[in-house]
Amino acid sequence: MNGENADDERDLDGADPSGDELDERDAVVAAVRERVDPDEAERERLRGVAGRLTKRAESKATELCPDADVLRAGSSARNTWTSGDRDIDIFVRFPPTLDRETLESYGLAVGHATLPTGHEEYAEHPYVKGDVDGFDIDVVPCFRLESATEIRSAVDRTPFHTAYLVDRLDDELAADVRVTKQFLKGIGVYGSDLRTRGFSGYLTELLVCEYGGFRPLLEAAREWQPPVHLDPEDHGRTSFDDPLVVIDPTDPDRNVAAVCAAVNVARLQHYAREFLENPDLEYFEPDDPAPLSADELRDHVERRGTTPVAVRFEAPNLVEDQLYPQLRKSLEGITNGLDERGFDVFRATTMANESAVVFVELAVSERPLVERHGGPPVHVRTHAKTFYEAYAETADVYGPFLDGDRYVTERNREFTTARDFLESDEIFSVGLGVHVESALESEYDVLIDTDIETLLEEFGSELRAYFEPIP
Amino acid sequence: MNGENADDERDLDGADPSGDELDERDAVVAAVRERVDPDEAERERLRGVAGRLTKRAESKATELCPDADVLRAGSSARNTWTSGDRDIDIFVRFPPTLDRETLESYGLAVGHATLPTGHEEYAEHPYVKGDVDGFDIDVVPCFRLESATEIRSAVDRTPFHTAYLVDRLDDELAADVRVTKQFLKGIGVYGSDLRTRGFSGYLTELLVCEYGGFRPLLEAAREWQPPVHLDPEDHGRTSFDDPLVVIDPTDPDRNVAAVCAAVNVARLQHYAREFLENPDLEYFEPDDPAPLSADELRDHVERRGTTPVAVRFEAPNLVEDQLYPQLRKSLEGITNGLDERGFDVFRATTMANESAVVFVELAVSERPLVERHGGPPVHVRTHAKTFYEAYAETADVYGPFLDGDRYVTERNREFTTARDFLESDEIFSVGLGVHVESALESEYDVLIDTDIETLLEEFGSELRAYFEPIP
Repeated sequence: MNGENADDERDLDGADPSGDELDERDAVVAAVRERVDPDEAERERLRGVAGRLTKRAESKATELCPDADVLRAGSSARNTWTSGDRDIDIFVRFPPTLDRETLESYGLAVGHATLPTGHEEYAEHPYVKGDVDGFDIDVVPCFRLESATEIRSAVDRTPFHTAYLVDRLDDELAADVRVTKQFLKGIGVYGSDLRTRGFSGYLTELLVCEYGGFRPLLEAAREWQPPVHLDPEDHGRTSFDDPLVVIDPTDPDRNVAAVCAAVNVARLQHYAREFLENPDLEYFEPDDPAPLSADELRDHVERRGTTPVAVRFEAPNLVEDQLYPQLRKSLEGITNGLDERGFDVFRATTMANESAVVFVELAVSERPLVERHGGPPVHVRTHAKTFYEAYAETADVYGPFLDGDRYVTERNREFTTARDFLESDEIFSVGLGVHVESALESEYDVLIDTDIETLLEEFGSELRAYFEPIP
Repeated sequence: MNGENADDERDLDGADPSGDELDERDAVVAAVRERVDPDEAERERLRGVAGRLTKRAESKATELCPDADVLRAGSSARNTWTSGDRDIDIFVRFPPTLDRETLESYGLAVGHATLPTGHEEYAEHPYVKGDVDGFDIDVVPCFRLESATEIRSAVDRTPFHTAYLVDRLDDELAADVRVTKQFLKGIGVYGSDLRTRGFSGYLTELLVCEYGGFRPLLEAAREWQPPVHLDPEDHGRTSFDDPLVVIDPTDPDRNVAAVCAAVNVARLQHYAREFLENPDLEYFEPDDPAPLSADELRDHVERRGTTPVAVRFEAPNLVEDQLYPQLRKSLEGITNGLDERGFDVFRATTMANESAVVFVELAVSERPLVERHGGPPVHVRTHAKTFYEAYAETADVYGPFLDGDRYVTERNREFTTARDFLESDEIFSVGLGVHVESALESEYDVLIDTDIETLLEEFGSELRAYFEPIP
């Protein structure tokens, strides 16, 4: 094999032609481990706090219900937390004979006994959250069931996940889970919240187990042909319409990757290739774009020749898992509304902070005063007559005339500029998220062209990410 | 039946609720006849000239070929010419044993003997054309065949058409053919030339025969559900993809209406309804739009808010039947070329005189400096890598970034204005008619906005027809 063929080979299948490059990847991974592996002191601190609180929870739980037990869940229980993460999850399990109301009151009682300075939050059940020695503690009640298929709410499933993984994650795999999590954070796809729509911790753990480590996962991911279907326990019995399907080992009817968006699967594939070819620590460092300056913004808009438009309103007071789906729905509604009226959307996004913004870059922001209005074929007699007679008697209409076998007229457009449309009541007809609709009903601004500079103070980083997109 | 129902009835089926309206239609038709029926003096003049020339042609034809004969064809032979038409067609038939070359030389010899001051023209055969006493005479050679299915060129068919119709057109039907022709002229659809793409004289005669007169034809046409299929001799054996199919009584494989465009069928349907409801002489008067003035043109453009663009060049030196298909092809190519590049075409037309023009009204005449350039899905590995690497290293490109599972970049557009495109060599890539392409290669102007006023001198009437369209 000559040198040229060796290069081709490497281009096509990413095989590693030299030991030097292998070492380079290992060296990068070693450096990442150095950063993400908690050291013995950190482990000791966590063990201390977790042990103490678990005991406290056990004591209160069995006092209320002798049949209760307590166990730790989440990454700190599975040895897969990355250094600096301070989350400890304590699950208090009650027998399924308890009614839900009692479970909730017992759960809160245990929580408050465990975390005297904690406060209540609400997910599927209410639970208590608090801070102890710098750790962020959740005390969560759930039912103790025979199987994950019997669960009554999502939290009931967590103990099964922990039980499944504790058996399978040895120290080496757990270390690779930490490296993988850091990689996914670095490329912006870690988290199954509805803002990120990426890879959850549990999904990451399953993928590392399934492929046998960080490197084998990346080597597999770069070859994925979505839809990708993994079923570690080979018991799946439901089909899913997602780009990545990982059947939950504890529940044959659940896709662990259901929330993972196609773009994030693609992003993992892209960066798997990039890292394997050009290993670098940068892939493990989350992007934190500096705010765009007014000059940079002007330069981008001038260089692009598009018309930026922002609809800005007070952000609805919702958790992110509710807010982002609403913002995306509103973004889709507004871009469709613009496109349908001839204001061609070039690219668009949404951003939220104190205020929320639907940001649209238009390729076409003005339209002629007339629009074409197609009528029925002449041979559809009653419709054709009605159409013809209606428009023949309408002032300010060109036609009706024939185009092929159909009548057509040219009448005045309702909106000749994107601003006219966005400032009209028609914006409420495009299918906004319901809370976004309420927010707009109260007040909103339409910013066009250079007016968007007023967004920089609040959204400078988001605007850099928009105008300087990376994969 | 009360008055309201009577109105409904009339609206729905166009039935005639009162004798008065019947009379009104008859009165209009009577007035049209007055105008289009040749009077006895005109008939006598035509008979005189035609008889004299036919004899002359017979004498020369039989001198050259004892087996030849001569007959008259066309509307003057079928009593369907409208007053003022001055066409006399004399067909000289030779036996099919003659070779084509001899037929042509005999044909020209007979033509010159018949029309000593005539000149040669060329359709499928060469023939002689001349003016005698104000009549426009064609002397056309053809083969005398047993059946129209054996014809060697289109002219051989004409004697069969005349023979078929002479038997069927009595004086009353012939009068209705004249009225119908005048109606078709009035609404702009008379003629099977490739500029008009309307109803030929023969097609008109067949339709009047088939339906039994002018009024029955209109009453049928307003109810047509294209494709309409008529087969007077019930011998058709080929299927046609045309909106109107009239199988030639002399040839089962021919659609007499093949050239008739959908828009002209629809126009007949539209005006049939209009005339039957509101009979008026105006429907029999060809539209002759006065030239548009510069002020009117400016008013239209301002009121429409569109961007008019004209590509003007020297009209190729072709007969209309060749010129108009080329202009239409070029119009389609240029409008598609504009649309594909984001310059949305609102409406367009073509016009010809000394110069020829592709006239396009744009809804969008400018585009941003960037355009979206979609790449392959990330999972199509080799393509994806090639795309990514090519653009990652290209300056002046935004991205590559991911949109769903695909790479996409935003790169500089080739053309940001319609003018840039139309003045570039790319205009030659859109599929122009071959003679139009040659004309543009030699020279052309691109006129935009107010510059189109320079078209008014040559195309004032065409521009009024464009901006003030009627069905």
